Amino acid sequence: MDTISVPDFREQSPLQLGILLYPHMTLLDLAGPQATLGFHSTTHLISDSLDPVLTDSGVSLLPTVTFETCPEDLDVLFVPGGFGTNRALQQENVLRFLAKAGKRARFVTSVCSGSVLLAAAGLLDGYKAATHWAVYEQLETFPGVTGVHERVVADRNRFTGGGVTAGIDFGLTLLAALRGEETAKMTQLMMEYDPKPPFNTGTPATAGPQLTAMAEAAMQVSLDEGLTIARDLTESRMQPLPAL
Amino acid sequence: MDTISVPDFREQSPLQLGILLYPHMTLLDLAGPQATLGFHSTTHLISDSLDPVLTDSGVSLLPTVTFETCPEDLDVLFVPGGFGTNRALQQENVLRFLAKAGKRARFVTSVCSGSVLLAAAGLLDGYKAATHWAVYEQLETFPGVTGVHERVVADRNRFTGGGVTAGIDFGLTLLAALRGEETAKMTQLMMEYDPKPPFNTGTPATAGPQLTAMAEAAMQVSLDEGLTIARDLTESRMQPLPAL
Repeated sequence: MDTISVPDFREQSPLQLGILLYPHMTLLDLAGPQATLGFHSTTHLISDSLDPVLTDSGVSLLPTVTFETCPEDLDVLFVPGGFGTNRALQQENVLRFLAKAGKRARFVTSVCSGSVLLAAAGLLDGYKAATHWAVYEQLETFPGVTGVHERVVADRNRFTGGGVTAGIDFGLTLLAALRGEETAKMTQLMMEYDPKPPFNTGTPATAGPQLTAMAEAAMQVSLDEGLTIARDLTESRMQPLPAL
Repeated sequence: MDTISVPDFREQSPLQLGILLYPHMTLLDLAGPQATLGFHSTTHLISDSLDPVLTDSGVSLLPTVTFETCPEDLDVLFVPGGFGTNRALQQENVLRFLAKAGKRARFVTSVCSGSVLLAAAGLLDGYKAATHWAVYEQLETFPGVTGVHERVVADRNRFTGGGVTAGIDFGLTLLAALRGEETAKMTQLMMEYDPKPPFNTGTPATAGPQLTAMAEAAMQVSLDEGLTIARDLTESRMQPLPAL
């Protein structure tokens, strides 16, 4: 047997899905949304070069386009989060690419701390947005962003999800907006998305103060760095990125 | 800032996590479990060569070891599923690797149709196992396997998950077995795993007959191929793989 039978759900015109890659991003932030949208899309994995990008749990991904060769008209610009967000915030070429691509994309989207990168690129000024529960303070450092503690936040063409696993809920919600509810419902069935979390500790409210303090302690250095970087960025410029 | 602050949860002795890669596997099948276990592990991505492996939604992964160079003593051998399972079933080097590695691994595990590969390698003879809702008939073609329609099935050291998104529930369950409940609960909090599916269509029972028929129709060629391949395999040998 020489072929592999993979169903092709792409209609005449597949969606152009552009996903930013950066070192120490979180693989699952990308994989959840990409699983929902990927069968309806051509996926462009975007980086500053075509070198492999190491994610924060040790798996490497291969970019397919660079900032220069990425298609200009994306249906969806998507930014995952992860521990590498802080470093990416300091990369002017990353923020410039996002600002430029975000102006043209039909939907400007993120999961987890990816919304912090969208905000730093000036793409959430005047918008409501979600992010990982631990980085709302960092997100709101940027002018004009209103953090909303929901699993998925849709504000006009900005769709943002909460932390990591929220990417599946986000992806199905966005797919429904792009391809209709029936397609999204069938995709949910194909992915057997009938979650049964083994514990009830998915948010600080359900996890309780002790577990939450442990999680915050484990992330403390990263959270502190993130706030410092975000404040430095907003203080160093009183307006969005110049001369794009 | 020259460093990225990624928390290191690995204890003195990180878990050795071996994940099989194969063409047209499902990225999310891998990413869910790897997100739960990865911060406590050294992840080995195993393939027949170090060439990039294309997943079924269009994202490529980079192997880190080959069948020959994979560490012998894995704490966890994990096999993801996907539309490429049928092709992988026909690759004798894949089945031989699994049979050999599965004999030594502390835990032999899968998500989605990955359990079909474990069964074909003789690793589920006498065990209960889960798989994607659409491939239980294929799974049970192999002698001695009892399919169980649950989200996560743990039978001695065999841990198997249902379709695709079940990998998160599976991963947290396995992490609890490996590192204790508190670690698993904190990981669930870090991943903000408090799912809010936008629809209630994650199983055939909740999706109803019409959506289920549509999903089955979309996968029909692959499902038919899978049954034929599995039957041919079991008929061509009356016992497990010879001379391992």
